[in-house]
Amino acid sequence: MKTLADAFHHTLQDIYYAEGAMVKALPKMIEGTQDAETKQAFSDHLEETKQQVKILQKVFASIDAPVKGEKCDAIEGLIKETEGAMKDASGKALNAMLIASAQAVEHYEIARYGTLRQWAKELGNAEAHDLLSQILDMEKAANAKLTGIAVSKAN
Amino acid sequence: MKTLADAFHHTLQDIYYAEGAMVKALPKMIEGTQDAETKQAFSDHLEETKQQVKILQKVFASIDAPVKGEKCDAIEGLIKETEGAMKDASGKALNAMLIASAQAVEHYEIARYGTLRQWAKELGNAEAHDLLSQILDMEKAANAKLTGIAVSKAN
Repeated sequence: MKTLADAFHHTLQDIYYAEGAMVKALPKMIEGTQDAETKQAFSDHLEETKQQVKILQKVFASIDAPVKGEKCDAIEGLIKETEGAMKDASGKALNAMLIASAQAVEHYEIARYGTLRQWAKELGNAEAHDLLSQILDMEKAANAKLTGIAVSKAN
Repeated sequence: MKTLADAFHHTLQDIYYAEGAMVKALPKMIEGTQDAETKQAFSDHLEETKQQVKILQKVFASIDAPVKGEKCDAIEGLIKETEGAMKDASGKALNAMLIASAQAVEHYEIARYGTLRQWAKELGNAEAHDLLSQILDMEKAANAKLTGIAVSKAN
């Protein structure tokens, strides 16, 4: 990888893998929590994540590249951390840690979409910029919703 | 782990490990970039990270727990991703990807400190809440600085 277009293509493959991994991880998180509000938030986010996968396919089309994921070590680590919480925690600790893990994933994705959107702008790819902005807004809203749940459970 | 206090203690050990891992990773990132402004931002953040390690030691004291890290899979994944960029990228792609990786780490830390601070509040630990707020503000400022560099390089 030498150019910004190379970095964009690589990072797009990375986040496409990450979203696909979350489509597989979220059902386990939904099953893992006993809290109805958290369960609903994770279920809603699973549906959103599936939509985001489709939006990302349009971003690949915008750069005439085949739709393809590339192993993303960061999301693997984040999911491993979530699995650890489900193995080692129960009760209030489990629910709090699952929400925290989901927020860590949201923040990772917010960082990546913020970067990709900026790169799309620099590369003059207005379509990708708009598609990535759509996803970024969804991720920010999902994170805010989780913060709301975390704070409401705490008080 | 059953209680919120257990979750707090575990996640504190997790982020303590993560900050220690960044103290080791940042010098490689400083060496990896050829861009003077990025190099300076990473150097400044290394010094801040060392300060944060000391602040976290006070948070351990506030819960009468020994200072101890616990392997954090998320930071390991994030660092592995950064090392991948340094191995596979060069020129403009390398610098852009290093800034992006550093921002992904900042976002992970912002998620974790936001959670820990909220939990400290719920647990009635005002000292930990204030110490964690200090670090959270530093991480947010570091991320904003990196966004500024990323955008300035792009235009």
